[in-house]
Amino acid sequence: MRLYLQDVSHMLIFGFGFFLTFLKRYSFSSTGFSLLIVILGVQCSILMEHVSVLLTEISLSGIPGAAMSTVAVVISIGAVLGKMNPMQSIVMVVVEIVVFYVSRWINIYLLQASSHVSMMHVHLFGAYFGLAVSSRFSEPSPRSEKNASTPRSDLLSMLGTLFLWVFWPSFNSVLAVEKDRAIFNTCLALAVSAVAAFAFSGLITKDGKFRMTHIRRAALAGGVTIGFAADSIKHPWIAMILGLLASAISVLGSFCLQSCLPTLRTHDASGVHFTFGLPAVFGALAEVVFFVMDIQTKLPSIGNEVLLSIGALCFTISVALITGLITGLILNFKLWKPIPVSKYFEDQMYWEFPHLAVGF
Amino acid sequence: MRLYLQDVSHMLIFGFGFFLTFLKRYSFSSTGFSLLIVILGVQCSILMEHVSVLLTEISLSGIPGAAMSTVAVVISIGAVLGKMNPMQSIVMVVVEIVVFYVSRWINIYLLQASSHVSMMHVHLFGAYFGLAVSSRFSEPSPRSEKNASTPRSDLLSMLGTLFLWVFWPSFNSVLAVEKDRAIFNTCLALAVSAVAAFAFSGLITKDGKFRMTHIRRAALAGGVTIGFAADSIKHPWIAMILGLLASAISVLGSFCLQSCLPTLRTHDASGVHFTFGLPAVFGALAEVVFFVMDIQTKLPSIGNEVLLSIGALCFTISVALITGLITGLILNFKLWKPIPVSKYFEDQMYWEFPHLAVGF
Amino acid sequence: MRLYLQDVSHMLIFGFGFFLTFLKRYSFSSTGFSLLIVILGVQCSILMEHVSVLLTEISLSGIPGAAMSTVAVVISIGAVLGKMNPMQSIVMVVVEIVVFYVSRWINIYLLQASSHVSMMHVHLFGAYFGLAVSSRFSEPSPRSEKNASTPRSDLLSMLGTLFLWVFWPSFNSVLAVEKDRAIFNTCLALAVSAVAAFAFSGLITKDGKFRMTHIRRAALAGGVTIGFAADSIKHPWIAMILGLLASAISVLGSFCLQSCLPTLRTHDASGVHFTFGLPAVFGALAEVVFFVMDIQTKLPSIGNEVLLSIGALCFTISVALITGLITGLILNFKLWKPIPVSKYFEDQMYWEFPHLAVGF
Repeated sequence: MRLYLQDVSHMLIFGFGFFLTFLKRYSFSSTGFSLLIVILGVQCSILMEHVSVLLTEISLSGIPGAAMSTVAVVISIGAVLGKMNPMQSIVMVVVEIVVFYVSRWINIYLLQASSHVSMMHVHLFGAYFGLAVSSRFSEPSPRSEKNASTPRSDLLSMLGTLFLWVFWPSFNSVLAVEKDRAIFNTCLALAVSAVAAFAFSGLITKDGKFRMTHIRRAALAGGVTIGFAADSIKHPWIAMILGLLASAISVLGSFCLQSCLPTLRTHDASGVHFTFGLPAVFGALAEVVFFVMDIQTKLPSIGNEVLLSIGALCFTISVALITGLITGLILNFKLWKPIPVSKYFEDQMYWEFPHLAVGF
Repeated sequence: MRLYLQDVSHMLIFGFGFFLTFLKRYSFSSTGFSLLIVILGVQCSILMEHVSVLLTEISLSGIPGAAMSTVAVVISIGAVLGKMNPMQSIVMVVVEIVVFYVSRWINIYLLQASSHVSMMHVHLFGAYFGLAVSSRFSEPSPRSEKNASTPRSDLLSMLGTLFLWVFWPSFNSVLAVEKDRAIFNTCLALAVSAVAAFAFSGLITKDGKFRMTHIRRAALAGGVTIGFAADSIKHPWIAMILGLLASAISVLGSFCLQSCLPTLRTHDASGVHFTFGLPAVFGALAEVVFFVMDIQTKLPSIGNEVLLSIGALCFTISVALITGLITGLILNFKLWKPIPVSKYFEDQMYWEFPHLAVGF
Repeated sequence: MRLYLQDVSHMLIFGFGFFLTFLKRYSFSSTGFSLLIVILGVQCSILMEHVSVLLTEISLSGIPGAAMSTVAVVISIGAVLGKMNPMQSIVMVVVEIVVFYVSRWINIYLLQASSHVSMMHVHLFGAYFGLAVSSRFSEPSPRSEKNASTPRSDLLSMLGTLFLWVFWPSFNSVLAVEKDRAIFNTCLALAVSAVAAFAFSGLITKDGKFRMTHIRRAALAGGVTIGFAADSIKHPWIAMILGLLASAISVLGSFCLQSCLPTLRTHDASGVHFTFGLPAVFGALAEVVFFVMDIQTKLPSIGNEVLLSIGALCFTISVALITGLITGLILNFKLWKPIPVSKYFEDQMYWEFPHLAVGF
């Protein structure tokens, strides 16, 4: 258990800390604040674990589970990266962790989701909560020179992605029943999704060049998608096909949505919708399909089970969107001193730079 | 045991290697020489372990212990970073490891310190030895343009800090009797000290901005302080309060000392006094207090025990200061070709740059 | 086994990914393509493991073994870094993995090499295959401004080297019979080779300065050399002497070869000949010597055994060189659209840069 805790904490601290450093002038805040947010998130989660033991007499998943729940917060922060001050972030962390735990209780006790599957909803919850919060903040001007990456910041972000990539099999197996199978399937899905990321990225860009953002997002999409069914998939090729489709959804999804529905989109600073949101929806649906195919003999109760699974999925997304919208409204109160649009994506709002003369 | 060794070596190689890269023009030397120093330190420590088996017929703590002792050397190097050439560093490593082992023997055999507590004196020893050595080197001119960091070097240093932060629980539990409790308490203390670092840093800087240096130092201070009593603290809130106080000591200590006693300070290149020195003194005193509170019934021998604990603390500091001063004097002999003040903090003294034209 | 797999995958993904980032304008491709290549390599290797089970009814070494075989590919890529487009890299990966597995079967079944020793031939195979492929590509112009490193890219490469360095003991012990001894011996050899790297580098450069390239190469050479005999060396000092000699071969070898035989050399982008090739040849020979010294009593069969060991070494090198040359010829077919010399070492051939205006 110590090793699982260590793997998850590496993933949270290094992985997400550096995954988010792609903005040119926001690298201090990305690493610093994600450290702050992760720690606060884990502490809130541990408290919620204890509350859940007091209220329901059952521990959900202990300390590693508390660390895993924090992933929701880091994903949400990714959607509003650079737009919130630390005070707003802290409020969001506390609200989100509480709501996520309540949502998990309902998933487990009313909708009969397993502990593993209800935990994998963390990606869904984090992504849609973050997007809903983000929709309440102003759009940055499209030609903002600060909302961009440099090759160097992209490279650091790639370092973070590699950390996430390597530790993802551990993450998917912490609460799984058959841990070895979960690890093996996750490795396969991640491998295929990373290879496919290159292919799809070359396909949709001009001149067939690769775009680092696509690689980063699609390489992780496979791990998100496979999460739900990682311990129940019996054939390696199924895991590989899931990885391929996850990568396609991530890369092509972002391409279609941005070119076809430009009016619908809210600003999504680090593309959490395509990295975590859509692949998780797909993974949850795939898990339902596997479930149906697996027990096709026992017809009577199957409709009920399928309805409950899809219900859990819709419930998590709805809760995330509604509470996210409310949180977004609350965070725009003057009380929290929200930062003006012109100061978005700017380290200098929060950090002392004794070396201002030196170009970054 | 293999895993502990791996964790400690990760901490030494990555953590300290990159923790020290904050100087603008000294990043090659910081990583390169800290690799050199760590390896030499571990080899000296293994030799000293064998000498101690020959002399006293008892192994102090084996290979992981040898790796842990090397922390003293890396901390000391942090205090004189950029002022010594490799030859001087090597001499300092050998002298410091030998003196630290002698000091540990005396602590264990005469002052009856436990193996775990005497090992935690490594922070104290390293910090005060380094400060004493540093006091024998000239001050760099306060407006030296090279004694500064850039955002990029600060970020790399943050990467190192995160490595140290994540592996600190392993470090504190290697020699602890109750390993799980030591890990849990260290995690809590580190979490609280990192959160508090943001609060205190915002408190003492102008405009309430954060300073990266504060975050780096104070986030680690909690782990240093909790080290002494990590395996004997029974209530989580005690660990959390220790983390909070450690963070306060680290941030406010540096603020007070620099503003009130400007004459007393010696130049402390990477702030080891506030990262390792003061928090370790506080942790050692806290451990004595816990000890007294824990066995308040057995009155007769308690005075003796307390005296021995405080004696061990004072003894380690005195030995570190005295031998550090002597070493500092020796290192300034012409024999070692000490580098002039104007060449401090300069990679180009030691490394070939085929790419000099390119700005760094 | 899960832990070994994790260690090897960390080594491959972080270690080699960042070890190869030293080129100024090629860091995206170095990390991105080495991710792509490693994943494809592991998948090919898993397939070949299954083929080998089908054909010979014996699993060579399972999933960790498949990951280890991929090291051959990453080393080869190091030799032609910046000269191949992704399509060519993929072809090379597939060919090289297939040939390496065939060469391992022959080593094991005909030349009676142990599973561990035949796996250590991965360094030999990778280096000489890569060099042979590289000899079929044009030389970059010696004053190419792109074929150079900056201090920053050298530092990232050092980060990768440290990853490799720390995980090397795990790598050498995966297939070893006596794992603890293999780890201990590898640690010692690595420690000595890193210290010696500084000494030798200072010796052969002008003014006694260090060169980062030497440190990077020689620090790893010890691990490569000790690999063959890691689990059979009984005295620590033997491991230390091997580390010292490996470091000498790596640093002085590159010095001699470049100054004495300038006509013979093929362009070796990341010095794989001196990091992996020569130290592996030395390690394989040293293993034969140890073998002879170990069983000097049983005279009759010893000549045969020695011949087989040396035969395995020569066989691996010959296969690598011949198939490497053929692969190099095939890769220069117009079919793969080889890139012109003027576009070598250039990220912009493959990656979109929305931030071109910003200097890198």
